[in-house]
Amino acid sequence: MADLEFIHRLVTPAETKIVFLVMDGVGGLPMAEGGPTELEAARTPNLDSVAARAICGLTEPISPGITPGSGPGHLGVFGYDPCRFIIGRGVLEALGIDFDLLPGDVAARGNFCSVDSQGMVTDRRAGRISTEANAELVALLREKVRLPGAEVFIETVKEHRFVLVLRGEGLAGNLTESDPQQLGVPPLPIRALENAADPAASKRTADLANQFVAQAGATLAYWHPANMVLLRGLDKRPYVPSMGDVFGLRAAAIATYPMYRGLAKLVGMSALPSGSTLDDEVSALEHAWPEFDFFYLHFKYTDSRGEDGDFQAKVQAIEEFDSYVPRVTALRPDVLVVTGDHSTPALLRGHSWHPVPSMLYSRYCRCDEAQQYNERACARGGLGHIHAVDLMPLALANAQRLTKFGA
Amino acid sequence: MADLEFIHRLVTPAETKIVFLVMDGVGGLPMAEGGPTELEAARTPNLDSVAARAICGLTEPISPGITPGSGPGHLGVFGYDPCRFIIGRGVLEALGIDFDLLPGDVAARGNFCSVDSQGMVTDRRAGRISTEANAELVALLREKVRLPGAEVFIETVKEHRFVLVLRGEGLAGNLTESDPQQLGVPPLPIRALENAADPAASKRTADLANQFVAQAGATLAYWHPANMVLLRGLDKRPYVPSMGDVFGLRAAAIATYPMYRGLAKLVGMSALPSGSTLDDEVSALEHAWPEFDFFYLHFKYTDSRGEDGDFQAKVQAIEEFDSYVPRVTALRPDVLVVTGDHSTPALLRGHSWHPVPSMLYSRYCRCDEAQQYNERACARGGLGHIHAVDLMPLALANAQRLTKFGA
Repeated sequence: MADLEFIHRLVTPAETKIVFLVMDGVGGLPMAEGGPTELEAARTPNLDSVAARAICGLTEPISPGITPGSGPGHLGVFGYDPCRFIIGRGVLEALGIDFDLLPGDVAARGNFCSVDSQGMVTDRRAGRISTEANAELVALLREKVRLPGAEVFIETVKEHRFVLVLRGEGLAGNLTESDPQQLGVPPLPIRALENAADPAASKRTADLANQFVAQAGATLAYWHPANMVLLRGLDKRPYVPSMGDVFGLRAAAIATYPMYRGLAKLVGMSALPSGSTLDDEVSALEHAWPEFDFFYLHFKYTDSRGEDGDFQAKVQAIEEFDSYVPRVTALRPDVLVVTGDHSTPALLRGHSWHPVPSMLYSRYCRCDEAQQYNERACARGGLGHIHAVDLMPLALANAQRLTKFGA
Repeated sequence: MADLEFIHRLVTPAETKIVFLVMDGVGGLPMAEGGPTELEAARTPNLDSVAARAICGLTEPISPGITPGSGPGHLGVFGYDPCRFIIGRGVLEALGIDFDLLPGDVAARGNFCSVDSQGMVTDRRAGRISTEANAELVALLREKVRLPGAEVFIETVKEHRFVLVLRGEGLAGNLTESDPQQLGVPPLPIRALENAADPAASKRTADLANQFVAQAGATLAYWHPANMVLLRGLDKRPYVPSMGDVFGLRAAAIATYPMYRGLAKLVGMSALPSGSTLDDEVSALEHAWPEFDFFYLHFKYTDSRGEDGDFQAKVQAIEEFDSYVPRVTALRPDVLVVTGDHSTPALLRGHSWHPVPSMLYSRYCRCDEAQQYNERACARGGLGHIHAVDLMPLALANAQRLTKFGA
């Protein structure tokens, strides 16, 4: 795995276009031993026809045995080492509601919760209150909470979940959480971690967060069951150099879910208006085709159906995706990559550690003998097993956007 | 990838002999989709008969997507991490004309160029003057240029290209270049880089290089079109521990081109008189057989024909090489490695990022099912995809020259 500085020094301009089709959680498992995976069960004539002309392989999102979240999974696909660029849960939550985080902001994932008269937590999710109730409480908090020297943003996410963003000079992450992760105990005070990079700023941020919790508790005292808040994953937006700066790419993201647009914006992509269906997404790609060098198109439902544990529905999602592939290849991208950010086998009803079937087509890809896009064919493919983070340098090389290293 | 210190601690003496046959740029691509690569098109009964008894795989010269120059490509094959041992362009150019660089020397790649009456560059290559004209100008510079406290060597390379070597106490690399890489502007002053390891020595070296440029400009003032010089890639010969010290090998290099002899000498190999043909090279191998433990035999023309874009000529070069393999196997090396320093597909007319078909034969190699030496067979081989730099420890192990790690 070459680091970004190394790649950056080799970047050279070109007119070529690169498309990354990312089927979320596309990798799978057989439901019964000896059976097919979701990809193997799906009828995918269009993906298979790309596979027959492409080089195929398995990509390891992190390293063997490690299951990535959506953040690390996507950063790897975008060419950023997910073990180096760490995205806090609060930041991911803020990205997920399209909140425009500025570089110095600290974001936290918040839960409305229930506490008893002694202040002991009795329900960490306040009975999963409705999103409407959440919005009312958020309006109340916005009215009442004031912190010295910092702007406060409070945003409804869904049910009991909200996002807190602190904006001001001299804030920092590296903080403990207030969620005790158990019942019958009080929320924990937030503190700077011992190894905080900027202890004074972390201390100041912890003080502000604790003041927020105290004021929220006072404001919500009579709003049973949501009479308290818990904060987790308080952190700054990480510094991530943009794809324009590092790879010399005008990069665009097409995704129907805000979190994926947020992840793409984190690496400097332009998030295009993408509608709500795959048809909308492919139309967005066609429409923006002349304007960008790099397109990331995200398809969510392979992951959703995997999370549901619904093998057959995931197969159908794959087949739906397959039916749109001809519209993508008709654009004649110089480099077409098909991959996923991780595996989500229906059998496991969640993200998993399994490497992801991936393929790359270009005029110079050194096509292998794989004739299908699935786990078994990709395991024998010419790419071998590589790190997901190596897909981007490979795509750049195939797009003739990298010059030689050394004389 | 194990580092040199790690390998070194495991080295144990043996009487075994290792041969590395390096076909420069051997990896290729099909000219038309679905067609054969150069290796697949070539009739190579002798290489294939080695493959049938060997373990095969693909070696990554640097990392996925990275195209190596000849320097990094060879260092990897010799077992030296090419991202750690960096060879400047000036040093490589000096190696390429068999100039014996001493450890403290700073070498630069020079161009004769044209400037107008305002000193603006009008041709970065002085109309590619003849090598004879170059030699005349070099003689003139040798006569006129004197630098305080440093010896100066000026050597013709070819056409507009020359090498400048500064020799003296307290010199250093980490310098900017004088070549502005564009026309209509003056040559740039050479300066120490901000992060120079030894700023005082780099500053002193920059001063000397600028004095050289000034004196050269004065000397050549009336020698239109070659009335000025540009310097690039000023650097010291990197410190590289010798193969004798690190691997315990008496190592010999057989190569018809000076640059490859120079690269081999950089890692402490003895450069044998190698003649100018493959027949001469194999005779040199046979002749020196009793004297050394390790032989590197370089074949240039696979790369040259790839650079020409001549698929059929590269196929013929491979077939020519194949015909000499029986003379090599007749020597009964304990370990025989066949590889390349990088790929040079005729389709791309230059070095490329594609991994290199490689194979290793020894009595203990754990032979796989590959029956041919080419991209497709090696992609399925038992070695899998490995870093080129791992070939040397594998060869040492197969030669029973590495002991156990840990008790």
